Amino acid sequence: MGTVTKALNLLSFFTQNRHEIGLSDLTRLSGLNKATVYRLMGELQEAGFVEQVGPDRAYRLGPEVLRLAALREAAVPILSVSRGILDRLCDATGETAHLSLLRGTQLVTLGHAYSPRHATRVMMDDAEILSFHGTASGLAVLAWADDAFVDAALAGPLAAHTTDTVTDPGAIRAMLDQVRADGIAESVGRFEADVHSHAAPVFGADQRPIGALAVAAPVSRMTPAQRATIRAELRAAARDLTQRTGGFFPPEYPQEAAA
Amino acid sequence: MGTVTKALNLLSFFTQNRHEIGLSDLTRLSGLNKATVYRLMGELQEAGFVEQVGPDRAYRLGPEVLRLAALREAAVPILSVSRGILDRLCDATGETAHLSLLRGTQLVTLGHAYSPRHATRVMMDDAEILSFHGTASGLAVLAWADDAFVDAALAGPLAAHTTDTVTDPGAIRAMLDQVRADGIAESVGRFEADVHSHAAPVFGADQRPIGALAVAAPVSRMTPAQRATIRAELRAAARDLTQRTGGFFPPEYPQEAAA
Repeated sequence: MGTVTKALNLLSFFTQNRHEIGLSDLTRLSGLNKATVYRLMGELQEAGFVEQVGPDRAYRLGPEVLRLAALREAAVPILSVSRGILDRLCDATGETAHLSLLRGTQLVTLGHAYSPRHATRVMMDDAEILSFHGTASGLAVLAWADDAFVDAALAGPLAAHTTDTVTDPGAIRAMLDQVRADGIAESVGRFEADVHSHAAPVFGADQRPIGALAVAAPVSRMTPAQRATIRAELRAAARDLTQRTGGFFPPEYPQEAAA
Repeated sequence: MGTVTKALNLLSFFTQNRHEIGLSDLTRLSGLNKATVYRLMGELQEAGFVEQVGPDRAYRLGPEVLRLAALREAAVPILSVSRGILDRLCDATGETAHLSLLRGTQLVTLGHAYSPRHATRVMMDDAEILSFHGTASGLAVLAWADDAFVDAALAGPLAAHTTDTVTDPGAIRAMLDQVRADGIAESVGRFEADVHSHAAPVFGADQRPIGALAVAAPVSRMTPAQRATIRAELRAAARDLTQRTGGFFPPEYPQEAAA
């Protein structure tokens, strides 16, 4: 592993559940030796990627990541464009809408909108990592990813998030065929019990999936009419977001899919 | 310079005016040799910090920076909190409001709001680097920064952005005394001709400045009444943003400053 990769890998230990990490914990999490972690974090700190806070001088992410994100958005304004699209999606469906984007080999939630229509709703966090095999968003991306990507995503032992999670690679590949025929992926209680999710892929300039838009509803509220509404709205929203960020649907994507 | 610093330094060549950079340009800009740049960019690409696009495989920032920014916001929600504060500031003043944040030794714009009140307005870009000596935001930060920081900011030859830019370090230090007495920094045409800006510092948990809120108006619209409104609104907005992001004003900050 190169030195730069080692340093950037240290940043991956920051998650929604772990905003601040001390030197000892970083050493333990990374498996590197403490002097190396200290030196790498020093370089990351110098560049503004992390900063030290509190009496124990724990590390947290620094303001430089905001500057880079603002520049990325200026180049590819997917978060700002998606904000209006997510709002419309949750208005039209009355349920939680969210966006996830690929970063390397992971799918990460990066935007969401809540509907005020119901007292209960599916809650979301940004920057959560979604499983490919266990979520509608993951299946929507996998269905149009290239073979090597799918093989890698299904290679490891697959986690059972709930008792309904499908973890057999063969069964998942069969599900992907269905998603490709349909244009939309669907997951009932396979990532979180009681959540019924639909997702549609969003494509980049090279016609490959860059992420997914999804609508997540409590299982108890799903009706055939609501399901038809969600699928139609998702399809329109994914097309809108793809086009407005310079992407193109691949020719094999179904034009008018059976629901 | 460490290897990690070299790699992160390559990211600093991406700006609002340069969203995509080819390998040859990166080599020229960095002064490193081409094989080194290629290797470092490969590691950055592997981690999702950059991606290659277009027929010439130019580099642009990648989606990993969005994930890190979302986590930074979850830890220190300054951009999301500032959005409402910027909206109110520009509603109350009828002029462009903006936020800038320190990242290392640079001050970077990271949010803005426009008022629809007038047909002309001061335009802003996010992720622009502001000069310390030439902008109200820079002076507001310098006035409460520690001595070493001020010395470094005023050490180099200072650019004259306009014919009115003050570039004499002694004269700038005298201006900082005024800002400290006042609580607010003011700049008339010293960064861009015809722009009259006011700025107030925003503080972190350690009572040091982390950035500034500013209101930028065309010189032609500034009246004594408008100036008083802007100063009062800025003062309240900076206090609000500081408090809501866990910061504290230093005891020497003037409680009720003379306008």
